[in-house]
Order: sequence, then C-alpha cells, then structure tokens
Amino acid sequence: MNLLVVGSIGFDTVETPHGKSEKALGGTAVYCSVAASYFTKVGMVAAVGTDFPEQHTEFLRQKGIDLTGLMTLPGETFHWGGRYHPDMNGRDTLFTHLNVFQDFKPTLPKSYCSAPLVFLGNIHPQLQLHVLEQVQAPKLVALDTMNYWIEGTPDLLKEVLKKVDILFVNDEEARQLAGEMNLLRAARKIWSMGPRIIVIKKGEHGALLFYEGDIFFAPAYPLENVVDPTGAGDTFAGGFMGYLATSQNFDHNHLRCAMIYGSTLASFAVEDFSIEKLRTLQERDIFERFAAFQRLTQFSRE
Amino acid sequence: MNLLVVGSIGFDTVETPHGKSEKALGGTAVYCSVAASYFTKVGMVAAVGTDFPEQHTEFLRQKGIDLTGLMTLPGETFHWGGRYHPDMNGRDTLFTHLNVFQDFKPTLPKSYCSAPLVFLGNIHPQLQLHVLEQVQAPKLVALDTMNYWIEGTPDLLKEVLKKVDILFVNDEEARQLAGEMNLLRAARKIWSMGPRIIVIKKGEHGALLFYEGDIFFAPAYPLENVVDPTGAGDTFAGGFMGYLATSQNFDHNHLRCAMIYGSTLASFAVEDFSIEKLRTLQERDIFERFAAFQRLTQFSRE
Repeated sequence: MNLLVVGSIGFDTVETPHGKSEKALGGTAVYCSVAASYFTKVGMVAAVGTDFPEQHTEFLRQKGIDLTGLMTLPGETFHWGGRYHPDMNGRDTLFTHLNVFQDFKPTLPKSYCSAPLVFLGNIHPQLQLHVLEQVQAPKLVALDTMNYWIEGTPDLLKEVLKKVDILFVNDEEARQLAGEMNLLRAARKIWSMGPRIIVIKKGEHGALLFYEGDIFFAPAYPLENVVDPTGAGDTFAGGFMGYLATSQNFDHNHLRCAMIYGSTLASFAVEDFSIEKLRTLQERDIFERFAAFQRLTQFSRE
Repeated sequence: MNLLVVGSIGFDTVETPHGKSEKALGGTAVYCSVAASYFTKVGMVAAVGTDFPEQHTEFLRQKGIDLTGLMTLPGETFHWGGRYHPDMNGRDTLFTHLNVFQDFKPTLPKSYCSAPLVFLGNIHPQLQLHVLEQVQAPKLVALDTMNYWIEGTPDLLKEVLKKVDILFVNDEEARQLAGEMNLLRAARKIWSMGPRIIVIKKGEHGALLFYEGDIFFAPAYPLENVVDPTGAGDTFAGGFMGYLATSQNFDHNHLRCAMIYGSTLASFAVEDFSIEKLRTLQERDIFERFAAFQRLTQFSRE
C-alpha cells in the first residue's frame, strides 16, 4: 500500500442548476481514494454507519482500494446536503448530519503504518495528529484543512502544519491562515509554518504550486458542462498524491505533473454528480486529458 | 508603420487601495500604443484637447509612436475618474468627461492607410467601421468592444464583427455578446459572427485564446503588488498586436506567444499607476518576464 488516505465518507445530497443527486456516495476519503486508485494502491481510513450500502463498499473494493481501515460504527452514516448557486461558484449547506463521523477516531490497521505517502483529509487537527503518531517515517505527508479549523483550533492546526510536507488549501483559506491578502506573500508565510509544498486551489480558476521559491500554475480545464463541483478539491488531491506515490520522485517537474494529474482527475469529477464519472474512467481518458492540458498551456518562444 | 491603433487618449484620475493618481496620462490608444512600441512601429489615431500637455506628446514621440494621426481639437481632453474596490476586482466610475472625445471622428492620415495590422479600440462601432473603410487590405484587424455597445448598438457591432479577424473581450462581455454563460459555447457562437480569433480576458485569472477549434490559456502573472489595474486590457492588446506586427506570422504558436507577450506587458502595467511602469521598461525586462511565464506553466510528461 503506497498511499494512506484519511477522511470522511458518507452521503451527499446535492442540488445544482443541472439537477439533483440524492444520498449519493461522497466524502473526502472516497473522492481522494478513487482518484488516486488510477495511479497506485490506496489504503483508506474512514468510518461508516450500519446503513452504508454494500454496493458502495464493493465499488471501492473493485477500484483496488484497501478497506482494512474502513470501520463500521453503530449508527447512521455521515450525510451532507447542499445547494449550489446558479453560477456554481458558491453553495449553501442545507444540512450536515455528522452521525457516526462524530465519533470517528482514525485507528490505523498495522499494515497501514508503513505507508510511504499520507493524505490527511480535512478533519479535526487533533485526529490528524493522532494519525501521524501511528505512521512510521512516511516520505511525504499532505494535509487538507478549512476555515473552521483555522478559526476554531489554530494552535492545534499549527502543530500539525509543522509535521507535514504538503498543504492543500483554497485561496480564501490561504489568506485566512496567513493573515495576508496577497497569495504570494501568504504562501511565503505558510512556508515558515512548516509545509515545504503549498498547493492553493482556486476552483474554476486553477491551482498554484509553491515549492522552493518556485511557482507553477495549473489551469482548470475549460469544460462545456460542469454538473457538480462537489469533491473537486479532494479529487485533485487524490490525483496529485496518487501520481506522486507511483512516481516516487518529488522533484520540481514531478510536482508539476502531479498538479496536472490532479487537475485532470478533478476535471472529470465535476462533469457528473457524485463520483459517477470516476466510476467508468479509463486510463486512456486520463492520458488524453493530460495531453489536452499540455496543449492548453504550452508554447515555444519564437 | 506596422500597427495602426485607434482609441481614446486622455486623463485618468484613479483611486486604489494603494493611493491616488490625479489627471495622469491614460486612454486605450496610449496603453495599447506604448505597449506595442516595444515590438513595432505604431501609428496612433486619437484626439486631445488644447489643454493636453506637450510633455505627454513628447513622451509618446520618444517611444517612437507616429503621431501624425493625433488631432488637437478645440476644448478639453477626455477625463475619466474611478475608484477601485478594496479587493481591486471591481471599480466604480466617479465621472466621465468626454470633452473632445465626443466629437472624435477618426480620420486616417494617408500614410496610415496601408497599415498591415489594425487595432480598433473600444469606440462607437460606427467609428470602427469608418476606420475600416479607410484602410487598404490590412492583414489582421482586431477589435475591442464593451457591454455599452453590445446592448446599445448591437446591429452596428455585428456589422463590424463580420469585418475583423480578432475580438478582444472580457468574460462578461463574451457571455453577453453570445447570450451564453459557458465560455466555450460563447466562443463558438462568436466565431460564427465573424472573428476567427477570440481572446477572452479574465483579469487576474488570465486570458483564453480560441482559434481554429484550439484553446490556449495564458495565466496572469502572480504579482505581489498590484497597484492600479487601469489599462491592463489595452496594454495586453498592445503587447499582443505589437508582437504579431513584428513577427508577421499568425500561426498557432505565434498567437500563443502573442498571448504571453500581452500578459507580460499587462503584468508590468498594473504594478504602478497610469503608464508609469511602461515609461522605463527595458526590452530585457520583457524577455525576463516572458521566460518567467514559461517557468510558470511548463512541464514535461514523466
């Protein structure tokens, strides 16, 4: 197992201008693991309730994901409901039923503790620290977080930040974490907090990579039909981490390719509700879109 | 003379979170011509009032810009005042004194009529048509327009669109012109209106080029200090058209380089008020930032 993924798993009920999806499979650990499964062997740590349908477990298993760390707890599965604005650039949360996610304490199966790459999805920083205490000498640890923890548990979050190599945040979170409007200056402040590699996601406006004084920009792929943006960020992280897990090389160009693989997987994810589009994706589709990304930005000086 | 530029010239009084600039040199024709002057010989068609300071004319002349087409009309020079929002993504117009610009009717000096490249800045479509009637067999004609003409004079605008090769618009204008929210579908509709080459500017989020079914994306350069975004779009057009005028090659890769030169010039323009930063820019600065743009987006598949 090359990549350990820790995060939420549950049901999403989502309304967008394109329709509605009821209690579909979702959650950070699902989007991230499924995306990464195209590149590498993933082990998932997450918790579901007793109502979690066997068909979902079976699907994840078919994707080659190690589910030894998937706990079934008494109670119902996490369920989130949201409605996107007409332009899809914002959304309102309609409900959040934490259910068994409330009692989730990530305990790693022994076979997971030697994972070389670790992705800590957006959960309580205390739980992220708890995971890091269990893994032995990982080569690369990535963290996702959000405004809720930046505001609510800043000290714990800073403690985790010192222990990770990569931080995934969106532009607003980066500004809030650094207390700095300008993203370049924000990235420099975040470097001093611990992470060597900072990925700032800007949704439909692409993503920025900051590493060793270097900046790389990956555009979002121009799509004709964005159906449901839910999980795009976690899918991005899955493509990014999955590619690095298989390449085992973390130099500048590999990190740049990871940005493009992340963008590639995310571009597919948003073309349908839930993880529908990722169910049937072929390796060929990924290679073709990666090549389309190259055509989108490459030029030679004349 | 390789590039004919038609548009406004005047004074801008601008407030941004970084300060205030009073009655500074501005206008489409100025930003565009000065940017293009780094690449090629530009001829400007515009009108000023009798109050226009000789120092501005002298500066434009020093940039090698042909001012045979600069008319001095009785009255005061165009003067625009605006205030940017704290995040600089929006602005309010405080006043627009059209003054002599009201009576501007672009009449081309004979020496301009054989210009191979033409940039029609954002003026009344009737005047844009009037310019096109005077030029003989140009190789490449570019047009800029805005919501005011899209709403106010749609038929005249459609007539001009049939006669141009390149359209420069921002994302909102593209959506409005095409009556289509999605930019890919909007570009396809605009192709059918005439322009073969469509450049959709997205401000701090970069710019898209649509040409022969192909899409190219140029990011905006990540800057630590954006002082004044006024004129960024016209500066972009100037870098774009100036580079094409000198390369005399309009194939895919040259158009892509033109996008990057446009972005390069615009990235300098916004780093200071008015055209201050463009006054002292060296060719070396342009080449260095062009190379920085390459580093920003280039990667090799591993």
